[in-house]
Amino acid sequence: VTDRSSLAIGFLDSGVGGLTVLREVAATLPHEHLIYFGDTARMPYGEKSSAEVLRYSVENAKFLMQKHPLKLLVIACNTAAAHSQHQLPLHCPFPVIGVIEAGVESVVRETTGQQIAVLGTRSTIRSGIYEREILKRLPKANVTSIACPLLAPLVEEHFINHEATKLIIREYLAPLKHQKIDTLLLGCTHYPLLRHLIADELNKDIVIVDSAKSCAEKIEILFKNNDLSRFDSKTIGQQTFYVSDDPQRFSLSAKSYLGFAPNIALA
Amino acid sequence: VTDRSSLAIGFLDSGVGGLTVLREVAATLPHEHLIYFGDTARMPYGEKSSAEVLRYSVENAKFLMQKHPLKLLVIACNTAAAHSQHQLPLHCPFPVIGVIEAGVESVVRETTGQQIAVLGTRSTIRSGIYEREILKRLPKANVTSIACPLLAPLVEEHFINHEATKLIIREYLAPLKHQKIDTLLLGCTHYPLLRHLIADELNKDIVIVDSAKSCAEKIEILFKNNDLSRFDSKTIGQQTFYVSDDPQRFSLSAKSYLGFAPNIALA
Repeated sequence: VTDRSSLAIGFLDSGVGGLTVLREVAATLPHEHLIYFGDTARMPYGEKSSAEVLRYSVENAKFLMQKHPLKLLVIACNTAAAHSQHQLPLHCPFPVIGVIEAGVESVVRETTGQQIAVLGTRSTIRSGIYEREILKRLPKANVTSIACPLLAPLVEEHFINHEATKLIIREYLAPLKHQKIDTLLLGCTHYPLLRHLIADELNKDIVIVDSAKSCAEKIEILFKNNDLSRFDSKTIGQQTFYVSDDPQRFSLSAKSYLGFAPNIALA
Repeated sequence: VTDRSSLAIGFLDSGVGGLTVLREVAATLPHEHLIYFGDTARMPYGEKSSAEVLRYSVENAKFLMQKHPLKLLVIACNTAAAHSQHQLPLHCPFPVIGVIEAGVESVVRETTGQQIAVLGTRSTIRSGIYEREILKRLPKANVTSIACPLLAPLVEEHFINHEATKLIIREYLAPLKHQKIDTLLLGCTHYPLLRHLIADELNKDIVIVDSAKSCAEKIEILFKNNDLSRFDSKTIGQQTFYVSDDPQRFSLSAKSYLGFAPNIALA
């Protein structure tokens, strides 16, 4: 029997983007052990088939389970969540939370007039998953989806506070100038790092929902309701990072997300 | 026996970038039949292993040969050229020209002081292929390599004359401000579309070498010396395009390169 104090929260991503989710969870539940796997050898997932992404997610989840006993798994990657959020729980003897589901639940809670915008990568937007999931819960909602394919590369290349990034965001958000939006969802794990630039281009009263934050809130509630928190609430939880390729580059990028360059192990 | 007039020049690329090469060849040799294959289903090649890229290139070359009798094959993709320029000729009963080799030969011809800069994707720059190929011919050359990972996505997303693209180019070229460069090589097939913006950031007397143009010049000489031109020099050659995925999106992007949206067939 595993000592419950040693159980960790696992995070799956294709790269570094999911670190925005880990960061929020660490801030909300600082005593929890967190273990992260970035499948950098096979990224980007965006252009891969649904079956392939599902297979990768199952493999990556099994890798994490071998490394550490888990009590929760977070699918911290929009593409992986889109293709595995229904199947992955069948492989895991603990709860699985995906960024899409968490983000959508927050949007549904926050929207005042059901006028919603979603930003995402081309692959996420083309899949229509956010629109579908929102309309399932709010059938009368008006959802405007905007593909922002350059934003994730800009974040990955550390152009986070660059004038060029501001101009590109302005271009992407231009269609919203002529619409009455009350809630905007950041439907890509990289975008929270651009939140301030995105906010600058929007009407002040628009609520920005960040699915990383939504995940953290959802986990907090789940842990409270099910008594899943670590017993030891005096020590800070450990953070462990694995990647399938190029740990050095990951470590460098991770600095933008975490504020420090963590030690990364090659899986 | 195939009528020599019907033989075509084949072009291999992972996506649309190689259209800059096709465009230059069409401008230089307007009577030639051109047949292009963009392996959009398996792009980007940048993160794939050398063996995999070689295998794809051989498969793609065979596909083109089945579609049309060829007299020349152009590897119009830096990644494919890096991994297949030595092997692919073994599979082809006609000459094979790669963008890397063509670009390097132009640089060697153009440089006045052997102070050379190379721009490319991260994968091309990391491979060191341009530096190696230049130093083979000019062992005393000083080669500065700059990875510009955002430039190809900016071109693909049609941010070609955008202020943001200017700012990002300025950032990438900043290290050259403190160096005496006489020749700069555009080591990615997308970059010729940004040539004017790149030129604006450089000292006026720096020669910009564009490997698309270099390929066209090399083919022109090869055809003259070996009497390979089409007999019929009164009609314009046919251009045929194949992709392995999403012909519509390819057609849309192709417009930035060719000035018109061509018909694209799914391979």
